[in-house]
Amino acid sequence: MKVYKISEATITRLSIYSRFLKQLLNEQLKTVSSGEIAKGVGVSSAQVRKDLAYFGEFGMRGVGYKVDELYGYIIKILGLNHAWNTIIIGAGKLGSALALYQGFIDRGFRIKAILDIEKKIIGTHMMNIQVDTIDTLAHKVQENDISIGILTVPADAAQEVTDQLVAAGIKAILNFSPKVLKVPDNVILRHVDFSVNLEILSFNLTHDKYMFPFRIDS
Amino acid sequence: MKVYKISEATITRLSIYSRFLKQLLNEQLKTVSSGEIAKGVGVSSAQVRKDLAYFGEFGMRGVGYKVDELYGYIIKILGLNHAWNTIIIGAGKLGSALALYQGFIDRGFRIKAILDIEKKIIGTHMMNIQVDTIDTLAHKVQENDISIGILTVPADAAQEVTDQLVAAGIKAILNFSPKVLKVPDNVILRHVDFSVNLEILSFNLTHDKYMFPFRIDS
Repeated sequence: MKVYKISEATITRLSIYSRFLKQLLNEQLKTVSSGEIAKGVGVSSAQVRKDLAYFGEFGMRGVGYKVDELYGYIIKILGLNHAWNTIIIGAGKLGSALALYQGFIDRGFRIKAILDIEKKIIGTHMMNIQVDTIDTLAHKVQENDISIGILTVPADAAQEVTDQLVAAGIKAILNFSPKVLKVPDNVILRHVDFSVNLEILSFNLTHDKYMFPFRIDS
Repeated sequence: MKVYKISEATITRLSIYSRFLKQLLNEQLKTVSSGEIAKGVGVSSAQVRKDLAYFGEFGMRGVGYKVDELYGYIIKILGLNHAWNTIIIGAGKLGSALALYQGFIDRGFRIKAILDIEKKIIGTHMMNIQVDTIDTLAHKVQENDISIGILTVPADAAQEVTDQLVAAGIKAILNFSPKVLKVPDNVILRHVDFSVNLEILSFNLTHDKYMFPFRIDS
């Protein structure tokens, strides 16, 4: 059996393709070509074909892809053919913004618990979920079959909370705290740093888009 | 003159290298090898050398890179050798979380104005900045020499605010609104979708990390 190493960039594009295909489904379109997908999401059609080729042959020569089939297939590849239960740790401004984030619900991510240490916040409601104390972490994870932890606590609390999530059996953590975290090899960790997004803008503002005439070959 | 097309993935890695080098600077280290950078940030040393090679030759054979020189160079490449003035439109939960985000300040992104339409919020302060009415947008952009707009308004207001930012002379927009926006070719637009991060986790939870034994070659 041959296995393929898939880059994060490919996964990100698959995610974008699936949103575009969903839109086509809503418009009741039946078939779509790689060129139309490419135009719709702003990449080359060669890129679309390459990304999809990792996962097999589903295009029909001269016709393109069946929209519903391709959509279903990508959703399955992304692991979105079933819902994922998540827990948010840290019910501050960012945590509560994420709790209310419609995009999570639309893509099958269910927030099952929100925890904090702040007495003023505990007991308040966000999206029908009552913010509970951090002491309930292990119980909440097990009770709700939670796979993904979303971390929005301050940097100095982040590692301790991470250790608690790992001990409770969490398999993946999305970290919004400005802190480099350690997790065991079997736990997937992803760090979201908002400033990287601004730095990509500042790079592009500094140079002429992605063309970088910095090194001059003699 | 030869020009190079730099991928977003490369820019993101440069951003990560610079954070690691900053850490080494704080520890007063003088030189670093590509292997040490690779280990520190979790990529291959071939990748580090390839990324840095886009921008010229600054390694010394057998010695590695001078930390301060390489740090200064990457910062310059990223356009972070001077500060950037930004404006946040939308002072809700996410907007105020971003206004307080230390990572922006650390990397030279200054928030110069925060605007909203909500009467309850206008006049309140976030990080010494008074939230002002959206009507002041053009004035704020020009008065503060603002290059980057950060959009956290609801989807149905996003295009209108974008048009106002463009009309006011903004050159780059970081969009957190769940809405596909149209901007002229000379304006750089970047969309942040939190659920893509969760989808990369769900992909990895579904498959064995990035090894994807989906397509079986006969």
